[in-house]
Amino acid sequence: MSSAWLLPEHIADVLPSEARRIEELRRVLLDAARCCGYELVMPPMLEHLESLLTGAGGELDLRTFKLVDQLSGRTLGVRADATPQVARIDAHLLNREGVTRLCYCAPVLHTRPAGLRATREPLQFGAEIYGHAGLEADLEVQELALTALQRVGVQGLALDLADARIVRALLAGVPVEAATLGEVYRCLAAKDTATLQQLTAGFPAEARAGLLTLTELYGGLEILAEARRRLPARAAIGAALDDLTWLTDHLARDFPEVAIGLDLADLSGYAYYSGARFAVYAAGSPDSLVRGGRYDEVGAVFGRNRPAVGFSTDLKEVVGLARVAGTRAAVRAPWGEQPALREAVRGLREQGEIVVCVLPGHEHEVQEFECDRELVAEGDRWVVRPL
Amino acid sequence: MSSAWLLPEHIADVLPSEARRIEELRRVLLDAARCCGYELVMPPMLEHLESLLTGAGGELDLRTFKLVDQLSGRTLGVRADATPQVARIDAHLLNREGVTRLCYCAPVLHTRPAGLRATREPLQFGAEIYGHAGLEADLEVQELALTALQRVGVQGLALDLADARIVRALLAGVPVEAATLGEVYRCLAAKDTATLQQLTAGFPAEARAGLLTLTELYGGLEILAEARRRLPARAAIGAALDDLTWLTDHLARDFPEVAIGLDLADLSGYAYYSGARFAVYAAGSPDSLVRGGRYDEVGAVFGRNRPAVGFSTDLKEVVGLARVAGTRAAVRAPWGEQPALREAVRGLREQGEIVVCVLPGHEHEVQEFECDRELVAEGDRWVVRPL
Repeated sequence: MSSAWLLPEHIADVLPSEARRIEELRRVLLDAARCCGYELVMPPMLEHLESLLTGAGGELDLRTFKLVDQLSGRTLGVRADATPQVARIDAHLLNREGVTRLCYCAPVLHTRPAGLRATREPLQFGAEIYGHAGLEADLEVQELALTALQRVGVQGLALDLADARIVRALLAGVPVEAATLGEVYRCLAAKDTATLQQLTAGFPAEARAGLLTLTELYGGLEILAEARRRLPARAAIGAALDDLTWLTDHLARDFPEVAIGLDLADLSGYAYYSGARFAVYAAGSPDSLVRGGRYDEVGAVFGRNRPAVGFSTDLKEVVGLARVAGTRAAVRAPWGEQPALREAVRGLREQGEIVVCVLPGHEHEVQEFECDRELVAEGDRWVVRPL
Repeated sequence: MSSAWLLPEHIADVLPSEARRIEELRRVLLDAARCCGYELVMPPMLEHLESLLTGAGGELDLRTFKLVDQLSGRTLGVRADATPQVARIDAHLLNREGVTRLCYCAPVLHTRPAGLRATREPLQFGAEIYGHAGLEADLEVQELALTALQRVGVQGLALDLADARIVRALLAGVPVEAATLGEVYRCLAAKDTATLQQLTAGFPAEARAGLLTLTELYGGLEILAEARRRLPARAAIGAALDDLTWLTDHLARDFPEVAIGLDLADLSGYAYYSGARFAVYAAGSPDSLVRGGRYDEVGAVFGRNRPAVGFSTDLKEVVGLARVAGTRAAVRAPWGEQPALREAVRGLREQGEIVVCVLPGHEHEVQEFECDRELVAEGDRWVVRPL
């Protein structure tokens, strides 16, 4: 007996009312991606560890559960992020010349939760475009993320932009250990200037000042002009700010109801991003709902260094903010052998009705489905009557 | 570089054309279950090992990947079968008095493939009824399994019945080691009479003869009468044969197009079954597509020994035999900033059309979506024209 029903920490069942809402959400999001030409793929839960971790940095490694393959003796990982898998599919399996749009919706597992209340089993939905280096692709995935969230009724959307090239340009030529670099990114995202000052004490003055300035560069579209004034005049920084200006102009035009902003220090998450980054927030959600951006180098290890841009989100997070219907009223029917009854039940179900047959002896139990009608005999016919 | 794109054996990506068909299948099957009052649940991929293996026997243990939980130091398992999880949800989380119907659709992982061509990552769909000991529940899940397969267009269905109580009755009072028992079941399922004779050499004559007789008891409904003549006259065997007679009568009446048969030796699969068992085959499929039956004891370890009956199937198997649409024709549209174009694209997508925007510079690439129409400017309007 003991406690066989206890689940590990940060792992939970999804019970009927929420499960149905997640399923509806899944369908709306997959269909939203499909309408824009994104093809569905289903990469496996398990892969050789080195395929899962390609170019993604140490954070993903620490989050990935490792297993030994009994068939080969090799180390396998359970995916903690589907993005490198989808890049592998684009690079190796599809191997197309042109633009490829892919989407997926599948569970991932994390050894450690991303936050105090985070699940270790997100249900990751994502979409990616491969093969187009221009900003049109960045804009398209940002628009898809916003449209998809709007379709499921998430309110109060805000989209923040940043660009991975700015920090790279500031640190160009500065030798930094990987562990320190990870800490720098963490401090930038958390705007932890005290620790950032300690970490960068030995950095060249311009790099250090630039990083500290970044922590102040968040807010509305006016931040772009401020960044041009305050950040060092390097070509890569100028190019990044030009791209962000193009993107914010287009987003502000197409989504006047969404608060478009900038948070140039927020480069948190996996290390594979190489260009514009974005995060989408919703009213009532302290953490970002969607994270995405450009990661042109993610397919390199698979032998194909194609432009890539995409985003992902956790349906278990989104469901709390979405307005999707979970329950639908059902018809209560008696159990019986009469062909006419069985035919009536079958007909209703084929029309999409939920018909719950009350099994013999259970006539007086509470029905879990909200039954607002019942199937009753009227002469030799079976008819639906309100309850 | 090396071979980062190589997947482990018996693990595969599902590429776009098949992935979309699996997604359609998933929706039809979940909706078929929902129409009959089955509530969706989503148990986690990971649980404490002892919760996953409750009452299920050694076969499931060997198939289950084990992990160490960094948060607790305890051993976790990645589910190889969702059935014990759903029993746990019924027993502990929902803890309802009355009849509960639950369904699920989720990946499971196996350390070893079930067969030469089997995947180690089936996508398991299943449905279960808890709380009703009568045959009406057995019949209902069998009917749901058949109806669901018919809805997705699987042809040439055949359903075979057996009953776990017959072997139990034959072996009642016979001391058999667990390993030998497993072998006995394997030989019965494979009709391997030579090995069965060796294994049962020391068994009481009646038990041995009964087991060997079972291997011959497969075929049409006439097998029931033959079983009554040839098997020992024990109460439990008589009860099992009565139940099978009731079930075959009802199934034959409701599904005249399905070949209803018996295979009294086929008790393969996990060890939790306790009553009538069934397997569904389709034309062109050597292995069973669906397996199910009664397993009244599966919830006992969770503190609640309720009647339970259900089935499961692997969508990756079913998809090869199903007639579901995978592709849908798309509309090709140019990329552009004009508000009228963007509005036209948005409008088509809201109507459910797939609109693929051709990104700048990619006008002459092959489109992966089958585009049969295109969006073109006609004066100041955008109209859809056949391609």
